[in-house]
Amino acid sequence: MYDLLTFGEILLRFSPTGDKRVMDADNFACHVGGAELNVAAGVSQLGGSCGIISKIPAHALGAMVRRKVRAYGISDEYLRPDSRNRARMGLYYYEKGSSPRKPEVIYDRHNSSYSRISLNELPVRLWKNARVFHTSGINPALGERMKKITTEMIRRFHEQGVLVSFDVNFRENLWEERDARLYAETILPMVDIFFCTEETARLTFGKKGDLKKMMKSFADEYDISYVCSSRRTVHSTIDHSFTSCLFEKSSGRFYEEKPYEHIAVVDRIGSGDAFVSGVLYGLIQYSDDPGMAVKYGNAMEVMKNTMGGDLCKVLPGEVRDLIAEHEEDGYISEMNR
Amino acid sequence: MYDLLTFGEILLRFSPTGDKRVMDADNFACHVGGAELNVAAGVSQLGGSCGIISKIPAHALGAMVRRKVRAYGISDEYLRPDSRNRARMGLYYYEKGSSPRKPEVIYDRHNSSYSRISLNELPVRLWKNARVFHTSGINPALGERMKKITTEMIRRFHEQGVLVSFDVNFRENLWEERDARLYAETILPMVDIFFCTEETARLTFGKKGDLKKMMKSFADEYDISYVCSSRRTVHSTIDHSFTSCLFEKSSGRFYEEKPYEHIAVVDRIGSGDAFVSGVLYGLIQYSDDPGMAVKYGNAMEVMKNTMGGDLCKVLPGEVRDLIAEHEEDGYISEMNR
Amino acid sequence: MYDLLTFGEILLRFSPTGDKRVMDADNFACHVGGAELNVAAGVSQLGGSCGIISKIPAHALGAMVRRKVRAYGISDEYLRPDSRNRARMGLYYYEKGSSPRKPEVIYDRHNSSYSRISLNELPVRLWKNARVFHTSGINPALGERMKKITTEMIRRFHEQGVLVSFDVNFRENLWEERDARLYAETILPMVDIFFCTEETARLTFGKKGDLKKMMKSFADEYDISYVCSSRRTVHSTIDHSFTSCLFEKSSGRFYEEKPYEHIAVVDRIGSGDAFVSGVLYGLIQYSDDPGMAVKYGNAMEVMKNTMGGDLCKVLPGEVRDLIAEHEEDGYISEMNR
Amino acid sequence: MYDLLTFGEILLRFSPTGDKRVMDADNFACHVGGAELNVAAGVSQLGGSCGIISKIPAHALGAMVRRKVRAYGISDEYLRPDSRNRARMGLYYYEKGSSPRKPEVIYDRHNSSYSRISLNELPVRLWKNARVFHTSGINPALGERMKKITTEMIRRFHEQGVLVSFDVNFRENLWEERDARLYAETILPMVDIFFCTEETARLTFGKKGDLKKMMKSFADEYDISYVCSSRRTVHSTIDHSFTSCLFEKSSGRFYEEKPYEHIAVVDRIGSGDAFVSGVLYGLIQYSDDPGMAVKYGNAMEVMKNTMGGDLCKVLPGEVRDLIAEHEEDGYISEMNR
Amino acid sequence: MYDLLTFGEILLRFSPTGDKRVMDADNFACHVGGAELNVAAGVSQLGGSCGIISKIPAHALGAMVRRKVRAYGISDEYLRPDSRNRARMGLYYYEKGSSPRKPEVIYDRHNSSYSRISLNELPVRLWKNARVFHTSGINPALGERMKKITTEMIRRFHEQGVLVSFDVNFRENLWEERDARLYAETILPMVDIFFCTEETARLTFGKKGDLKKMMKSFADEYDISYVCSSRRTVHSTIDHSFTSCLFEKSSGRFYEEKPYEHIAVVDRIGSGDAFVSGVLYGLIQYSDDPGMAVKYGNAMEVMKNTMGGDLCKVLPGEVRDLIAEHEEDGYISEMNR
Amino acid sequence: MYDLLTFGEILLRFSPTGDKRVMDADNFACHVGGAELNVAAGVSQLGGSCGIISKIPAHALGAMVRRKVRAYGISDEYLRPDSRNRARMGLYYYEKGSSPRKPEVIYDRHNSSYSRISLNELPVRLWKNARVFHTSGINPALGERMKKITTEMIRRFHEQGVLVSFDVNFRENLWEERDARLYAETILPMVDIFFCTEETARLTFGKKGDLKKMMKSFADEYDISYVCSSRRTVHSTIDHSFTSCLFEKSSGRFYEEKPYEHIAVVDRIGSGDAFVSGVLYGLIQYSDDPGMAVKYGNAMEVMKNTMGGDLCKVLPGEVRDLIAEHEEDGYISEMNR
Repeated sequence: MYDLLTFGEILLRFSPTGDKRVMDADNFACHVGGAELNVAAGVSQLGGSCGIISKIPAHALGAMVRRKVRAYGISDEYLRPDSRNRARMGLYYYEKGSSPRKPEVIYDRHNSSYSRISLNELPVRLWKNARVFHTSGINPALGERMKKITTEMIRRFHEQGVLVSFDVNFRENLWEERDARLYAETILPMVDIFFCTEETARLTFGKKGDLKKMMKSFADEYDISYVCSSRRTVHSTIDHSFTSCLFEKSSGRFYEEKPYEHIAVVDRIGSGDAFVSGVLYGLIQYSDDPGMAVKYGNAMEVMKNTMGGDLCKVLPGEVRDLIAEHEEDGYISEMNR
Repeated sequence: MYDLLTFGEILLRFSPTGDKRVMDADNFACHVGGAELNVAAGVSQLGGSCGIISKIPAHALGAMVRRKVRAYGISDEYLRPDSRNRARMGLYYYEKGSSPRKPEVIYDRHNSSYSRISLNELPVRLWKNARVFHTSGINPALGERMKKITTEMIRRFHEQGVLVSFDVNFRENLWEERDARLYAETILPMVDIFFCTEETARLTFGKKGDLKKMMKSFADEYDISYVCSSRRTVHSTIDHSFTSCLFEKSSGRFYEEKPYEHIAVVDRIGSGDAFVSGVLYGLIQYSDDPGMAVKYGNAMEVMKNTMGGDLCKVLPGEVRDLIAEHEEDGYISEMNR
Repeated sequence: MYDLLTFGEILLRFSPTGDKRVMDADNFACHVGGAELNVAAGVSQLGGSCGIISKIPAHALGAMVRRKVRAYGISDEYLRPDSRNRARMGLYYYEKGSSPRKPEVIYDRHNSSYSRISLNELPVRLWKNARVFHTSGINPALGERMKKITTEMIRRFHEQGVLVSFDVNFRENLWEERDARLYAETILPMVDIFFCTEETARLTFGKKGDLKKMMKSFADEYDISYVCSSRRTVHSTIDHSFTSCLFEKSSGRFYEEKPYEHIAVVDRIGSGDAFVSGVLYGLIQYSDDPGMAVKYGNAMEVMKNTMGGDLCKVLPGEVRDLIAEHEEDGYISEMNR
Repeated sequence: MYDLLTFGEILLRFSPTGDKRVMDADNFACHVGGAELNVAAGVSQLGGSCGIISKIPAHALGAMVRRKVRAYGISDEYLRPDSRNRARMGLYYYEKGSSPRKPEVIYDRHNSSYSRISLNELPVRLWKNARVFHTSGINPALGERMKKITTEMIRRFHEQGVLVSFDVNFRENLWEERDARLYAETILPMVDIFFCTEETARLTFGKKGDLKKMMKSFADEYDISYVCSSRRTVHSTIDHSFTSCLFEKSSGRFYEEKPYEHIAVVDRIGSGDAFVSGVLYGLIQYSDDPGMAVKYGNAMEVMKNTMGGDLCKVLPGEVRDLIAEHEEDGYISEMNR
Repeated sequence: MYDLLTFGEILLRFSPTGDKRVMDADNFACHVGGAELNVAAGVSQLGGSCGIISKIPAHALGAMVRRKVRAYGISDEYLRPDSRNRARMGLYYYEKGSSPRKPEVIYDRHNSSYSRISLNELPVRLWKNARVFHTSGINPALGERMKKITTEMIRRFHEQGVLVSFDVNFRENLWEERDARLYAETILPMVDIFFCTEETARLTFGKKGDLKKMMKSFADEYDISYVCSSRRTVHSTIDHSFTSCLFEKSSGRFYEEKPYEHIAVVDRIGSGDAFVSGVLYGLIQYSDDPGMAVKYGNAMEVMKNTMGGDLCKVLPGEVRDLIAEHEEDGYISEMNR
Repeated sequence: MYDLLTFGEILLRFSPTGDKRVMDADNFACHVGGAELNVAAGVSQLGGSCGIISKIPAHALGAMVRRKVRAYGISDEYLRPDSRNRARMGLYYYEKGSSPRKPEVIYDRHNSSYSRISLNELPVRLWKNARVFHTSGINPALGERMKKITTEMIRRFHEQGVLVSFDVNFRENLWEERDARLYAETILPMVDIFFCTEETARLTFGKKGDLKKMMKSFADEYDISYVCSSRRTVHSTIDHSFTSCLFEKSSGRFYEEKPYEHIAVVDRIGSGDAFVSGVLYGLIQYSDDPGMAVKYGNAMEVMKNTMGGDLCKVLPGEVRDLIAEHEEDGYISEMNR
């Protein structure tokens, strides 16, 4: 019985080392990531038991991914091997920006092993083997086949009483806003925890009014227990601020805290997923205090930004210390020693 | 008017840096290669004017490739950009071996921009714009579409009086021996310079007898001006020997020289193509002395083995010095200074 | 229920990067290793379920170790955290040699977290939770406290019917030959699988006669099911040969195969432990064919030598291919592609 | 017929890698640069056809430079080889600063191959083979010989109707302000496009009044078609702002745009030359809209600052996007994906 | 006769390279440092003759340290070798922070060779062989044995008329505030130059009033010639400001200068010791102008922050230039070339 | 009073990192070397007190060199700073070979700071401040000015009773054999220890007969106390053998030992100088046993080959162990631990 199971594609990220651009690079750092893996890694680091449902090549690149998944304490029980000759990892090339030059992503993820996953290769016990199931809008955006699989998974988990978490994660290079909205409307009635930014609420879902009004309207319309919205302010490629808000339907309360200001960003990839992981961990661990979900969510987002790679690497104590210091008004030492 | 035009796919190679294995790597050196690019690069380095006919993404990875192509003095006049959203570089992962552990290649080249190339996007003047046209058996092995394009290219160049060079380059992971043979039989009548190893002659073409007999039979059967065959002896992953033989049909003569023994191999990828480049350069530059083709071919193969990357990086004088020293019996200094 | 549990210290290895010496280094590669961890990693890579019994700091260095342990698929269920302020990883500095300059090890392992491990912090279920328990003579060599713990562990596993495997692993910088012999004599009656080199048999145990005679005498004297002895021939720092011999008491048979010659050594650290892992895997998986233990043992030793780090990184299929090719007399391709 | 030919020395730059100082370095990144090469690279990247007139050693370092020149799409037709035994590359050592510690340059460029260039080794057709010729005040500052060659080149291009572009580029470590002024006065009557900072106008040329008045006075005094002046504001070593102004004599108009604020500077070397390249590209490509020259000039300066190396590496589309976003008031995404 | 002798432990620092965290690192930069070595290195770089009294292993790691000590021009005359089998370097692991994630130090310094140093292995001539002796409160915090040795050293130097400098350097992870105060009270009567931050004065010594009042009270109470206090303001992990104040008892004057604002911090470790070194150099070299001590102290602190490693690497002229520019109100060039 | 003073140029070596060629490199390792510095470093590492007479820039590159000189324990008392604006380090680019491709050196050493050294800037006490003075034939080969200075130095040391050591070190790229011979004849009467290879004896000096006969004839003709000749056998770029012979005139005896076979060469630069250093150390330390000079000379040559850089990095005990093992016939462990 896992605290959390997530479903999504695992990608390799290739980033030029040093201060090289892709067009001038001859050396690439390789990171393992993917929105739903990032979420599982966050919850696992904080102490939850997690697994990922995905598919990777059976060859050496798949072995590399499996080693990483395990290193983060995530179970690879449902990580299926693809033994076909054409098995491939989806990948993306990432070039760090430097204001005003923006970070750049080039995707190369079509026809990956993941895109061949089938519900038939997953065991029946799976659907009740978790407290929470999480996935994101990237899956249905990958095509009709993945759309069906995603919906079916959500349905099966939901029917077994597993809490369903869904992050819209709208990407305009993958599909149209209208398609994203239509799809979301089909699964939101089965969703218990919903992540959606203000911008997506407004542009994709056509919501009106201020953020809190929009959040509440999602909860009311689809009977969603928790609606969560984060806001990143990008001062420059190396200087962000961050905060978020959580609405609990049962109490009708909004949970917030003061923003983290001037985060010294090392690598912003995966920070949104780290936020989700913190919220889910908070909801799982402190089910009677949703404010903890906000605190963990924000702290995880912040932590992820300060390190390289898609996956947040933390010790639970560090996150607790960061939360405590964020609330502290007095003297804070500048170094831990 | 180019001395040489080649046609083939350009690939990115990702190799783990240091002594890491792919399954444990988090950093990859990225090389640009591909059999026909390697050949063009060799001839260009030696002083011939060369161009490559191929297709690459219009995005930053394509720009990276274009920069490399130009750096080697190869014209990118016929290097077509692919502006589709799904444009991608074909690529392969390469893991260096260490005896008895063998080098390992994982291909990921399906659906590349190259596979979308069309004869229609090439200018009409192309077909008479070269002295020699070179391609290899990798192209027809990539599928029916590439098979047709390759044949049509060979036909057009041949009709315009351009010398056609063809390297069998049989790869059993791409197609069947029987298919390779059937294909070769359709184009060999148009081929002027033919590269084929003893093993391929025997296994793929079902030739009998000793090497020279087989070479001569190709020339006789298909009226091929030059038949060329090389032999690499692998003592260990870091210790090879190499030699080759060239048959000139017009004179009925075989050209050979003593093998290079105990080459200290740094990276063996591309060494076969470097051999082809040396032979083609020799035939172009010393058309009345085919022995020079063998000498240049062998020397280029040897040089390539002693350096990293798919492409041979040499100054023409170095190759001439190596040829001279290989024939020298007396004292040879151990260092150039 | 694990296929294998091992008990031993996990060490950090610091090696200068590039061709630097320790005295001139300012950058170190950090590997995780330790004889018994190496053995568990080998069996786990081959497909056995494994765990390690050890103790590491609760701080970030311990987290680094735990991540590595998990990456290899080894359970960290019995990897105890040391939360003391003085918690430390044992470590060693390793300088690669270049003939005739020898590799050099500087140990710094006293007072480590491992040395504080206690049987009280291990659960009672542990002692019957494995098919095989493995440890080595490094443990009792670390002092009286570790000597007692090691003996008690062996006793408990033995009493629960778990097979006990013991590698003498004599290190003259840790203790005297006489002490090693006296200790071994106390535990050998409980040992089922015994690893001992010819040199150690002769010098430490004072055995006489040829290798096979000595091996048999161990089996007879202490009623040991399997006695195993390996022989590494060091031609130079980068060129080793290797073979081994296994004696099965029940059948009275010796199992051997022809040596692996001229292994191109990249990093010889951990190769002896990789050998042990192959033998144990073979005995576990092919219990009715001890010849497989020798084949797996030799192949794992060879593989480990060809890569960096203390731990062998392999896919099971690779090892099977190496075993098959070692027995092959005909043509073997020089590359996998 | 080139859009642009430039004349100037190509230098190697050696910079300590990582955060090392020169005095503590044992590893250096090597970049190829030089004011006039930088300008040609910028125009070439944007789409203009360019060549460089210079001289480099015939040995391997010259080959390295030639490869880089070609990679940027710059013709090496007029890049002369120096085969003397004493052939050498001019070079400089560069140490990145960190506020308030300033960047530091140590030149080692005397007696380079470039300093031996002669007009006699250049073909007669050269002088009419371009639309624009660009050089800078670094050349005449290198000594009497280079002074004469530079003047003669400007004269020949000017006589053939090629537009002459000149960047004062005053360097006080090379010559006196008075000498720079006297020299400039001899060639300015032949100059069509003139680059001069406010500071140089004031201190070196003794101009009075505000910037625009000074710019106009250059145009009037020497009949210069375009006078261009840029202003970099250095908040810290990693935070610059930048803007510029262009005066068109024929229309009497000044062209400007709002400054780029808080550029996150990675490597400021070559940013001034990138600015010149943008202006020249704009004047060549949009001859009836000088405002485009300012926009391209500013955008290229900004881009160069955000990446390592002397040469700006960009795709034309990126620069157009940056220009568009700089003029945009509304929402701008923080990442391209 | 040295200008300065210091006494303290030399440590190795291991920091993950790149933007890795310790828990994810497999490569570490290794720096040599230690508060009192840092001070000696600063004074030596500025031109003073210095030596360090310490103890290091006789093996290769000790040789590495000795080479570094010599490289900085520090005498290793009193650097004792430890030939025991258990000889070890004290070390610490350092993880760079990124706001709001703080830098992290993990110490592993117990039972080091340094901790075995004895007064008996030092020559008698030592105690009068310097103008100034410096040590810090880290030594007595290491235990009773080191407390006695430190006190005895101070006593001997003091008796021989050598000026004694003492930096409180309070570290709460090493001892209690009360112990630190009690110890300080025993040696302060022998101290001539005293370094103490405002915070330590207030919290550890229980002083009251503003900073200057507290500084003066130390001087009065213990008859200390110079009391020195610095203040670092941490805006973020990469942005500090710094200033300091010196009280001269004989004149009753306080010396200060305007703060250095917005130092772009690369590595803040050792910056406090660099400050001490600047002050000591100033007092030694400009004995009649204590204002120079403040200027050198501040400038050295600032310089250290802008470079990697524990030890400040500077040329004396650079520090003089920085001091001059800090006092300059007019135009300052942004680069030295 | 130094055991050894040497006179010669200090050079920077730039070598491409990894397996890159110079023409493809963008990163260079930087080593400090120079024949006479290499010799001083060897003797200093073995325990002799050494100094170097040379001249380097006063700027940061000179500081880098000075730090290295000191790190090896060599006094920089006679290392003069060059404060001219044009001060420069002599340098060379080195490309590692891989059989049969040979290592390649490109010199760039003209007009260096060293070439401006003058006897007037050296103190008078210098000429009697050493037991041995060593220099090589590289100095007179650098031009007439250096020829005169070298001769005068030899004369002054010789007149003060300092033993003069001279290594012919003939480099055909620097001068003619005839010039080298004529020069040597003028200084050999003042030389006490003479290093000359068999090849140079034969080709440059026109000696006849076998090696020993030639060695003796030098000793007889010029009254030289010790004549020393080494022989390197290059099996491949990574496999050398080495031996040497020393003739003592007073006893008429030749000293030799069996060759070191199959040295695994990492970097052969400086190995000849390491040999000289071992011989000089042996003659200084074991003045009554010239056989020790041969043993130390051979061992140092061997050690240098096994590590990167121009300078041999050893602990004295390692060299003694190597000498002992070279004479050992029995079992030798393959690792020190």
